[in-house]
Amino acid sequence: MVAQSLFPTLAPTIEWRDGDLLLLDQTRLPHEIVVEHVTDAAAVWRAIHELRVRGAPAIGVAAAYGLCVAMQDARSLPLSQFRAELERRARWLDTARPTAVNLSWSLRRMLQHARACNPGDSSALYDALVEEAQRIHAEDQALCEGIGRHGMPLIEPGSGVLTHCNAGALATTGLGTATAPIYAAHRQGIAFKVFADETRPLLQGARLTVFELQQAGVDVTLIMDSAAASIMSQGLVDVIIVGTDRVAANGDVANKIGTLGLAIAAEHYGIPFYVACPSSTLDFRTPTGAQIEIEERRDEEVTHLAGQRTAPPGIKARNPAFDVTPHELVTGFITERGIVNAPFERSLGSFFSATGNAA
Amino acid sequence: MVAQSLFPTLAPTIEWRDGDLLLLDQTRLPHEIVVEHVTDAAAVWRAIHELRVRGAPAIGVAAAYGLCVAMQDARSLPLSQFRAELERRARWLDTARPTAVNLSWSLRRMLQHARACNPGDSSALYDALVEEAQRIHAEDQALCEGIGRHGMPLIEPGSGVLTHCNAGALATTGLGTATAPIYAAHRQGIAFKVFADETRPLLQGARLTVFELQQAGVDVTLIMDSAAASIMSQGLVDVIIVGTDRVAANGDVANKIGTLGLAIAAEHYGIPFYVACPSSTLDFRTPTGAQIEIEERRDEEVTHLAGQRTAPPGIKARNPAFDVTPHELVTGFITERGIVNAPFERSLGSFFSATGNAA
Repeated sequence: MVAQSLFPTLAPTIEWRDGDLLLLDQTRLPHEIVVEHVTDAAAVWRAIHELRVRGAPAIGVAAAYGLCVAMQDARSLPLSQFRAELERRARWLDTARPTAVNLSWSLRRMLQHARACNPGDSSALYDALVEEAQRIHAEDQALCEGIGRHGMPLIEPGSGVLTHCNAGALATTGLGTATAPIYAAHRQGIAFKVFADETRPLLQGARLTVFELQQAGVDVTLIMDSAAASIMSQGLVDVIIVGTDRVAANGDVANKIGTLGLAIAAEHYGIPFYVACPSSTLDFRTPTGAQIEIEERRDEEVTHLAGQRTAPPGIKARNPAFDVTPHELVTGFITERGIVNAPFERSLGSFFSATGNAA
Repeated sequence: MVAQSLFPTLAPTIEWRDGDLLLLDQTRLPHEIVVEHVTDAAAVWRAIHELRVRGAPAIGVAAAYGLCVAMQDARSLPLSQFRAELERRARWLDTARPTAVNLSWSLRRMLQHARACNPGDSSALYDALVEEAQRIHAEDQALCEGIGRHGMPLIEPGSGVLTHCNAGALATTGLGTATAPIYAAHRQGIAFKVFADETRPLLQGARLTVFELQQAGVDVTLIMDSAAASIMSQGLVDVIIVGTDRVAANGDVANKIGTLGLAIAAEHYGIPFYVACPSSTLDFRTPTGAQIEIEERRDEEVTHLAGQRTAPPGIKARNPAFDVTPHELVTGFITERGIVNAPFERSLGSFFSATGNAA
């Protein structure tokens, strides 16, 4: 497994071992490394709901294996009853996180596979489901490898790479997305520095990105979000690579709040700004970033810190979870099939029209 | 007092009442409003050292009154002995915060005044020192009023104002510096919105700026530092006003980390970017921002949150306390004598050459 060789001391994000689903509990990181053995449907639901597994690609893989775990006690049922239970339990698992696109996508794919199968009995159908989950898992790792391979040439010996939030190995089952070129370059023995924004309010940079890069032996330095422009002004950053939650058809990018400010500063200093993403993140049904709805999260994430109130009571806050970076500020997209350059409206479409991608 | 009328429920930052020095304890804000009665030299030193009074102008006023408090028990000494004690105690108070320019400046001015005085006895010299401290206090309030008067026209009805850190009333004994135009406009009944950055790592925005604006009845919204560009992109910000720790002769501005990113985003969106400062902040001995040394503070401010470790052990961090915004990104300086526009090398010099300002 790729993840294992990268992180000798860290368990893989997700592992399927002799019918057991093992999840690295991300809510305990970086302070404790706890691997949860998930052995029934309720435990799968809770692990996804409580963000012990997080990151769209990792959630997709966990859901596929999770559906298998959920069906283990149904293998002795007659086939028709197994099929009915499968549909029912998949619908229920899909409620674990309502807005996670990869959760629904993965469960739908598992159900479609089951419907297309013509097995002798429930046990054979179960085996076919496990094989499909393993394919989803292998595909996720291959996507990360592809992004890493195509993005690696952007990182030259001695260069400085800046990233934001955690579009890392921990969000996938492989090299991550924004981190894939970093790990690929590191694997080649290239020496370079990474700067990771802490990423307020939930500190995915400070808690997860610096942790996984440190585990892999990458030279990483943690900075505050507000220090990024200063670090750029000192000539320490040669390329910025971030992930994305959704890319509109014209190349506008929705990503963690703070990405837009980085992109503007990158343009100011002439620093290339890349977005790493599997082609599944391209949403051709959304023409531009203006149509992307931005989730506003709870005020408490801004008015409190580590559970303690910092701002006085009664203070209004705005807490957008994402921002939209207009395509003019994006140098290119690093995808599993290559780097896509501007003009994006044409290039994204021609690059990915064959996949018929629309989610 | 200006501060009292602005904040009906809040004590003034600093008050001199019948020989007593009263300090609003800023380390307890916004959770508790505690006024400390400072009655001896050691208490003055501790209050400055422990940041119970903070902000360069407020520290200057506190030091002047503090020197008076420190000399109260010496009033019965012979004049020559009083003078010797005065020099000795001033030198000692000056050690309370080694890098606070206004602390040294204020104490030097008090000593110069004492040397120029020819009083009948120690008690008369003490009274002259109190009068000089009151002049320093009144001048600070007048500086803020001047900045407010000249900056007020930048805030139009319905506009959005963004500020960073706390260059507020709490850092002075009057309307503040960056907040002075805000309070001046509010006092005129102009309705507008303020967005305040939380200002990691020490959260002066979340703890102090939103607090004092709320106390004064100003419509204020707290945002994360990383959300500022997004708020600008939505057309919600018409003008940015920040304070500064030092302005170089060419107009380059040292201010709290994060200021540079705001200035770059402001230029991107065509939003005017103003720096509010008393002319004493202009440092003609420093030709450009390149000569301004940037303090790097403890890693723990970045790797910990509210005293709890968030990043894993052994993580490198960079924690610059300030950044330098090049003068090209500054629309103008709001000073007590008017707004200074580019080209700054010429305008700053001709505006302030009369003052002979060099600290």
